[in-house]
Parts: sequence; structure tokens; C-alpha cells
Amino acid sequence: MYDLLIKDALLVTCDKKHSLYQNGVMAVKAGRIKEITETGSAVADSLQAKEVISAKGQIVMPGLINMHCHAADSLFRGLVENLSLEAWLGRVWIAEKAILTPKTTFLGSVLGLAENLLSGVTSVMDMFWYPIETALAARMLGMRLSTGGIFFDPPGIGGRTHDDYVTEARKFSVTFGGSSDIFPATMPHGTYTVSPEHLIAAKSIADENEELFCTHAAETKAEQADIQNRYGKSVIRHLASHGLLGNRTVLAHCVHVDDHEISLMAETDTSVVHNPMSNLKLGSGISPTFRMQEAGIRLTIGTDGAISGNDLDMWLAMRLTSGLAKGVSMKPDALPAKDVLHMATLNGAEALGKKLELGSLEVGKRADFIFLDVNNGHAVPLFDPITHLVFGAGRSDVSDVFVNGQRVVKDHALTRHDLDETLDEVMTLMPRIKESLENV
Amino acid sequence: MYDLLIKDALLVTCDKKHSLYQNGVMAVKAGRIKEITETGSAVADSLQAKEVISAKGQIVMPGLINMHCHAADSLFRGLVENLSLEAWLGRVWIAEKAILTPKTTFLGSVLGLAENLLSGVTSVMDMFWYPIETALAARMLGMRLSTGGIFFDPPGIGGRTHDDYVTEARKFSVTFGGSSDIFPATMPHGTYTVSPEHLIAAKSIADENEELFCTHAAETKAEQADIQNRYGKSVIRHLASHGLLGNRTVLAHCVHVDDHEISLMAETDTSVVHNPMSNLKLGSGISPTFRMQEAGIRLTIGTDGAISGNDLDMWLAMRLTSGLAKGVSMKPDALPAKDVLHMATLNGAEALGKKLELGSLEVGKRADFIFLDVNNGHAVPLFDPITHLVFGAGRSDVSDVFVNGQRVVKDHALTRHDLDETLDEVMTLMPRIKESLENV
Repeated sequence: MYDLLIKDALLVTCDKKHSLYQNGVMAVKAGRIKEITETGSAVADSLQAKEVISAKGQIVMPGLINMHCHAADSLFRGLVENLSLEAWLGRVWIAEKAILTPKTTFLGSVLGLAENLLSGVTSVMDMFWYPIETALAARMLGMRLSTGGIFFDPPGIGGRTHDDYVTEARKFSVTFGGSSDIFPATMPHGTYTVSPEHLIAAKSIADENEELFCTHAAETKAEQADIQNRYGKSVIRHLASHGLLGNRTVLAHCVHVDDHEISLMAETDTSVVHNPMSNLKLGSGISPTFRMQEAGIRLTIGTDGAISGNDLDMWLAMRLTSGLAKGVSMKPDALPAKDVLHMATLNGAEALGKKLELGSLEVGKRADFIFLDVNNGHAVPLFDPITHLVFGAGRSDVSDVFVNGQRVVKDHALTRHDLDETLDEVMTLMPRIKESLENV
Repeated sequence: MYDLLIKDALLVTCDKKHSLYQNGVMAVKAGRIKEITETGSAVADSLQAKEVISAKGQIVMPGLINMHCHAADSLFRGLVENLSLEAWLGRVWIAEKAILTPKTTFLGSVLGLAENLLSGVTSVMDMFWYPIETALAARMLGMRLSTGGIFFDPPGIGGRTHDDYVTEARKFSVTFGGSSDIFPATMPHGTYTVSPEHLIAAKSIADENEELFCTHAAETKAEQADIQNRYGKSVIRHLASHGLLGNRTVLAHCVHVDDHEISLMAETDTSVVHNPMSNLKLGSGISPTFRMQEAGIRLTIGTDGAISGNDLDMWLAMRLTSGLAKGVSMKPDALPAKDVLHMATLNGAEALGKKLELGSLEVGKRADFIFLDVNNGHAVPLFDPITHLVFGAGRSDVSDVFVNGQRVVKDHALTRHDLDETLDEVMTLMPRIKESLENV
């Protein structure tokens, strides 16, 4: 007897071959996928479960993996507009300093993670000032999160020193290491805000526990010029020279990278997170994803924070990823939908070190999956489900989300938290947030 | 006594100054806006109406104007993928020839126009093979449409000759001219499919009745090379040399235009429709919108058809318009949200020759407006409504749509047509559509 049987589904597995089941059945037990088959097969007829759910008129597919987010920054969405990254960060940091405490970080994390979860994202990699709060928010909502200790050399939120960051990073790892929902990482902000010594310290902590190391890299031309000026090397060369690349390293952005930097990332099996909406809106530029793909780099996709977005929409990010690659290269077959769908699922799982656990619907993997409505006026006729997922589907099509076999979103609503409470609290905080920039 | 009073609304008027009313009231009578004011004013207290609707937690704004669409092509969405415009058109035309009749064109038009209307688009400019069918579909749904006789020199759908197209264009104009919902235009396909003589014939018919002239122009590099080769001139120069530019001319795409072509369009007050999603996906390239804006060209926005999209999402098109301008130029203040919102509203109205009637919420204009939910996890906190509309809002946020003061969408559903019937008919037609390309 299984715990759960999903039937009547158009199953888009996102496995390596992109196997589809037109009228699929999927059995779940103890949080894992135990069987996948077509309705009407001998195996299908024998399946029995405590709960049976029909997914008629819906695609069932793995939950998306958002590989770069600052969920709690949703508190500041729309506050700072029409500025470049550097000028924009200057104002964002002022607002963050005035507002952020562990409590408001938890509030913002719930807001941002709920947006992810409601749109079908089941795993998020997040970088923020109080990572324990974000982890607790993810656990409350019932989703998976990779995050961990931040490192930041200028005066940061909470007045912490490098030694404090080291202590907190170790504490985070001890607290959450080994769990199946929170994946610890160390998260120095970037090469322009963290010294080589402190980057190395962060990497050492990650390496001790075989955990991830994630940082912003090569996001803008100004950043490249700054690092070249300070260290006589470009950003990726600088990281490479200190041994900071590798298959447990995740670099967010990589908009401005030359061919040698691309080969350095490829040779070391470093993961790259493409954040197209943020890169466009901040005027950072357009990442050469198609060149990175040709070099064999593991590309993944992120939303970045809503403060540069202005939302956290992985469907948009997928569509932009494929569209920008085609539009910039003027090659309509560049980064086709099937590759981009893998970037948002299987590649993300692999970057998280969870390729045997997450990222596709396959027997033995965790039961993280979503229901997506395709019986509507922007999906019919559905000649090509994979193209539809990248070029037509949207957040509002996602009706139900399961993580580890548990339904955490039902009929477009969170099952474990009342989002209206969070929205009310955020609206109460709004005047203070607005005030934080008024006399600057 | 007014017909309708909208209260408790965050009114985003989209007038020239982008006036906002934080807690606005709007009165409607006989299909027109009669009063706009803040709640609590003396005027507001005196307003009485047969029907009063609260828009609490919602933005009320003008309906969007989608300036380039092929609604009935939604029948073929996802059928042809990963090809350039020219190769793609070759296959699209085979499928269209096998499937399109007046009846299937009506079916496809309902499908595509319903998607527009449900997402908050109240006026569409559409180009397709049987324009009367598309007009009747728009009228059935209760929305405004600009369309009219097509011109196409190669063997087209229905085996018509140039003389047939002339007759049909005149008939369309006689049938719908002077109405307040259907705005006739002549619509030759493009300079590479219609001879100069036939383009001139189409323009003459439009000019006789002071109606619009719309064509595809400068969409791809290959098209520019083709026209240069045939006529010794680039596409826009070719159009200009035959007197085909002007303030009743609407050119779709303009991706590949040089500075002189931009100045020709600016000098003649020609309208340009930017179709960012289609241009990206077909690998056509990225239109220099910021240069065209600097030259003073009236820029508007379109979705193009769902066959190159793969949907008809003006919210996505707005976000791409601002994002691409910023990303390509690496100037974060390029094409700010307030300008882009005008492109999708007021500029569209002006391009349609309806600037006194449509495109903004102003006293005396037609009551075409939409309700958009902002009490949700991707909108809160709402520091900047205009930025939210361009960078955060989406089709599913639109709950209600009014055209001419009549509610044509209520709680996310059409009020005048059962969309499920259309979806069923389209699904019945799917095997034949798929078959049309199977032995090609």
C-alpha cells in the first residue's frame, strides 16, 4: 500500500531523456517516488494507495529549483528603481540596515519563499543576512532550502565581524547539516566585498563538511574593472587562483566573463546561476549562456531578489533564458526549451549535490512535484508540453505543490501557513521601510 | 444617476502625467468616464449610481492595447519550434493552408482574443486571413479590434487574387467603418510578400477612409537583405519612397533599422510596434527601442501571434520592453516603467487614431478599464504601483475587465462566452492540425 497515487497526469519527468507519460500514474511512499507508469499497464492496475489524486487536465512535473534568491529582500521590492547595481546596492544597504533584524528577516523570508513555493519552486538557494531565520521560514512552509553563513567585510547588518561570520557559519552547518530539507552552504557576498583570506575561510568551512560555497561573481563590468584593479586579475581568474572553483562552488550571474574564464569554470566543474531578469533590469548586461553551455558548464537558473526583479518568477526566468540566448545570438535553435527546463530542474539538483535525490520524477527520488493547469486559454492546443512549460506556462498555472510527498500548496494556497497574516505584517512595516530612505 | 461607480480603487490613470488616486472613485455613464476623484472629496460624496463596485486591494487602470497580434494563429501554438522566421513561416503557411477556413479562423480568433481579454487587453490590432471572422469574434467577446483586409502576393489561404483582396478590404471598411468597436485598417503582409503597386493600393484604400495601414517591417536581417537586393533600398527607405509612412501607418517589429530609417519614421510620425517575445524566440534580434524613443518615435507594444510566443501576454511584453532596453544598453534608467506603461496604453490609443477615446482613465474617454489584484505575495509591499505593473504584475492578477462600461470579464471568466466550448472545439481539431505537417 502506497501513501499517495497521482493518476490521469501528463507526466513531464525532466529525466535525462525528457521521458513523458501521456496518461501517467505515479506512486509515492515515505516521501519518495516508488513507481511511474502509464495508466492501463499491468503495473498501474495493481497500484493501491491511502490517497488517490487525479491530475486530469494538468501537467505533473518536478518542482523547480531556484538557484539564486534573496527571499527576505522582498520586503524592499520596488523601493529602489532605475539605478545600476553599484548605486542601487548603496541605497538597498541603507534600507536593509534600518529594517533588518532576525524577526523582520523571518517575515521577509516567509514572504519571498511563499512566492517561490506558490509558483512551483520546491528548492531554493538563498543568500541573506540571518540565514537561520530563512531556514526556519522554509521549514515552516515545508520546502527545501540551501543557505548558510554569509561573509561580508564592510560594516554589515548587525555589526558583525569576520570571526562572528565564521562562528555563525559553523553553527549553521552543525544545526542543519545532514537534514533532508536544509542544505548548508557558506555564502560570501562577492570578491568586491570579501577579501581573498575571508573567501578562503568560507570555502574551508564548506569543504570541511562537503557543503556548497556560493558567491556573486562577474555580475557587472564595473565589478570586473574593480577586481582587475585590486588584484590584477579578472573575477573568475581571481577565484581560480585561490582555489575557490570546483563542483561544490556555485557562482551567481557570470554576465561578464571571457573565454578563458569560461574554460576555468568548465574545467573545474563549477556551477553557474543565470539570473536574466535581474541582469536586464539593473542594466548589468546579458550573460553569454550559449557560450557557457557550449563549453559544458552546468548552467542553472535563479530569480535573484525581488528588489531587482521585481518578483521571484522562475517561469519568467526560464522563458528569458531561452529567449535571450536565441535573440542575442540570432540563432532560433540556441538553448532550446528542453535544455532550459533541465537548467531549472535537474541541473539545479546536481549543483546542489542532490542529483540522486531531486530534480526529476524518477523512481527512488524524493517526491517533490507540482500540478500545472494546461486546460486554459493560453495552453490549448498543447502540441509540445516542454515548449509550453518554458514559453507559455506561468506561476498562476501551478495549483498544487508537493514536497517529500506532502501537499504544501493546495488549490493555489499554502497548507501550512496563512499568507494573509504575513501580508498584513509586511504592510504594517511599510511606512518604516519607506522612511528608511527618505532622508538619505 | 450614473450607470456605474467604482470605489476604493488604487487608480492608475495612465494619463500624460501618470496621475494616481490612492483611494479613487470613478463614475461611468453611457460607456464613458464621467468623473474621477479621491474618496472623501465633496464630489465623491455626491456620486450616485445604479451599480457600485468596490475595487479594494486592486489597481484599476485602463485596459491594455495590444498593437500586433494574429489571434487565430493560437490554433498552431507550439507546432513549429526552433526555426528562424523564414524557415518557420514556410511551415506555418503549410499548416494554415490545410486548416484555415472562415469557420476555423473564427474559432482561433475566439481563442486568441479571449486570452487577450482575460489578461486585461481591451483593444487589439490583429492581422489575419479572414478579418471579418476575427472582427465578429471580438464583437462576440465584447472587445475592441483594429483589423481589415489582408494583402499577400504569393498563393495564400483561400486562393484569392489581388483584386479579391481589394474587394474584401473595401467590404470590410464598409461593414465596420464608423463603429466604436471595430477600427478598419488595410494590412498588407510585408514588403517581401507584397509588391510596391499592391502596397500602394492597400494604402489608397486606407487613405480614402482615413483608416490605418499596417504591415510587418524590418523584422529580420534576411528580410532587409532581400529588399535591398530587390529594390536597392532598405525596408523603411523602400516604404518611404512609395509614400507609405505617416501617422496612420503602423509598422510591426522594426528590429533591424539604421539611423536614417529611424529618422524617416520619426519625421513622418509613423507608429512602431515592438514585439519583444517573438523577436527573441525566432532569433530575429533585439529592437533598438531606446534609440527609436530618443528619436521621438511613437512606440507601442504587441505580443505577435502565439505561434511565435507561445502565448499572448502583454504583461510579459511590457516587462521585456523595459528590461531589454536596460540590459542591452547597460543603462538601468533606459525605458523606465512609466514610459513603457504609456507604450501599452496611451501610445497604442494614439497609434489607433483614438487618443481622445482610449488609452487612459480620463473624464470623457471610453470606460475601458481593468481590475488588477495587488493583495498577493508577489505584489506586497507595493511601494511603486507603476513599477509593479511593468515588472511584477501578470495576466492572472487581472480579475475583471470592462469595455465601454460593460463588464466583459468577471472573476477571471468571460461574461459573454463559455471558453470551455472553444477549448473543446480546438482540442477536437488538434489531430488534423498535427497531421497537416506530418508528411511535409
